[in-house]
Amino acid sequence: MADSRAIGIFDSGLGGLTVAKEIMKLLPNENIVYFGDTGRVPYGTRSAATIQKYASEDERFLLSKDVKLIVAACGTVSSVAANTAKDLPVPFIEVISHSVDAAVKNTKNNKIGILATAATIRSGAHKRMIMERLPGAQVVESSGTLLVPLVEEGWTDKEDSVVLQTVQRYVEEMKRVGVDTVIMGCTHFPVLAEAISEVMGQDVFLVNMGVATANAVRRLLEETDALNEGLSHADHKFFVSDRTAAFESTASVLLGEKIDNFIVEQVDINKL
Amino acid sequence: MADSRAIGIFDSGLGGLTVAKEIMKLLPNENIVYFGDTGRVPYGTRSAATIQKYASEDERFLLSKDVKLIVAACGTVSSVAANTAKDLPVPFIEVISHSVDAAVKNTKNNKIGILATAATIRSGAHKRMIMERLPGAQVVESSGTLLVPLVEEGWTDKEDSVVLQTVQRYVEEMKRVGVDTVIMGCTHFPVLAEAISEVMGQDVFLVNMGVATANAVRRLLEETDALNEGLSHADHKFFVSDRTAAFESTASVLLGEKIDNFIVEQVDINKL
Repeated sequence: MADSRAIGIFDSGLGGLTVAKEIMKLLPNENIVYFGDTGRVPYGTRSAATIQKYASEDERFLLSKDVKLIVAACGTVSSVAANTAKDLPVPFIEVISHSVDAAVKNTKNNKIGILATAATIRSGAHKRMIMERLPGAQVVESSGTLLVPLVEEGWTDKEDSVVLQTVQRYVEEMKRVGVDTVIMGCTHFPVLAEAISEVMGQDVFLVNMGVATANAVRRLLEETDALNEGLSHADHKFFVSDRTAAFESTASVLLGEKIDNFIVEQVDINKL
Repeated sequence: MADSRAIGIFDSGLGGLTVAKEIMKLLPNENIVYFGDTGRVPYGTRSAATIQKYASEDERFLLSKDVKLIVAACGTVSSVAANTAKDLPVPFIEVISHSVDAAVKNTKNNKIGILATAATIRSGAHKRMIMERLPGAQVVESSGTLLVPLVEEGWTDKEDSVVLQTVQRYVEEMKRVGVDTVIMGCTHFPVLAEAISEVMGQDVFLVNMGVATANAVRRLLEETDALNEGLSHADHKFFVSDRTAAFESTASVLLGEKIDNFIVEQVDINKL
């Protein structure tokens, strides 16, 4: 029973494109509908109630596109608003539990670092899930607030001294404690993976939530026999709630290829 | 004919507090109502149509508080949405023209730098006004995108190497050209004034839009005989559309004193 409906992915903005990218790579036959709430980004600095309201609206938009599955490709939504998903008529996948599984599976010394936005760290979601799975773990949390605008400005080079010093400041305690695994708990951070490795050392394993989530999506579709089959060319549609001036450049940095290779449409999220 | 109604000030977020601070300092007798649209910040990355819609809503909120004057303490609004003010029943003051006047008055070599957000630079408002007043001027524009999150993270020290290198990257061309005056065209930047001076050199004059705007407010109130008189203690009220976790710390950085010395109230801007 193959299912040709699209996979719906949403994020507070464009960061979720790093997750979409991994899903597109792992599941090239799948149709994708991506919604980036660029009109209301960032969610990370909003109150929990506001984030929950926004997430529900984003999910309603994806449902209007007849998706078979919804991915909250957003650390903030996953940590604060995953409970908005309980009434959804389709399966829901968030990005935190699968990242945590990958970290717990990898760590040898049970010392795990979490680098995320301030809102995600405050939610305590990663740490709580790590402690459930690995009660003796030592967890070092750090909110790398400036790393998001660094990525959006395109300052990501692993030899850029501003990038390296900024990363250094955020991971200082993780290095001191000697974590062997770091969860990059914000969708923007995979773009900085090389710089983070440069600072942390090549032997520290970085969990890319896009990869972890793409694996979870594949497993779910396989188990429910809902993979799309027999397509020669999958359809990728991108929707944003505000088409900002920096949209093309930021989207391309995150997606790793030019966004204008794809169809992008603007929607009014307040009218849905 | 003294006027005891408050001065209304709004901004996309908390940056306008640097303007409020200068108005409070220059006009200690005046009642102030400040609205920071923290639920929808930042405006700088939004489209012009969205910014205009938001500005109109912010102005409507201030009018509901019976203000005698509205100050758009926001570079983005001033550059993109000043035309929303033409139908207002009270005088309107924006932050760009007065900054430009101060820069034009100060420059000796007619070389002026503008450091602002990307949206403000794209609007061309500062440059256009400079060229109207000083047709032979040489203007160097730079969008210092990362400086806003630097301030909000509290990284503002003039000896911090990340701060200095980031500023350096944004002002490189201004230094090369040899501007003698720099307009800090974003409300956050006065907090970085010492770091910017450190990089540009102490002989380069930095225009603080808060100071320029406070002077304009005083002039207008004097001319229209609308100063508040005879008050022993002025009332300062702050409203925000979302009370975020970082609110207190960011507000205190920008205001230069603890915001919890003041009354702060949250309002739902979508319900006004």
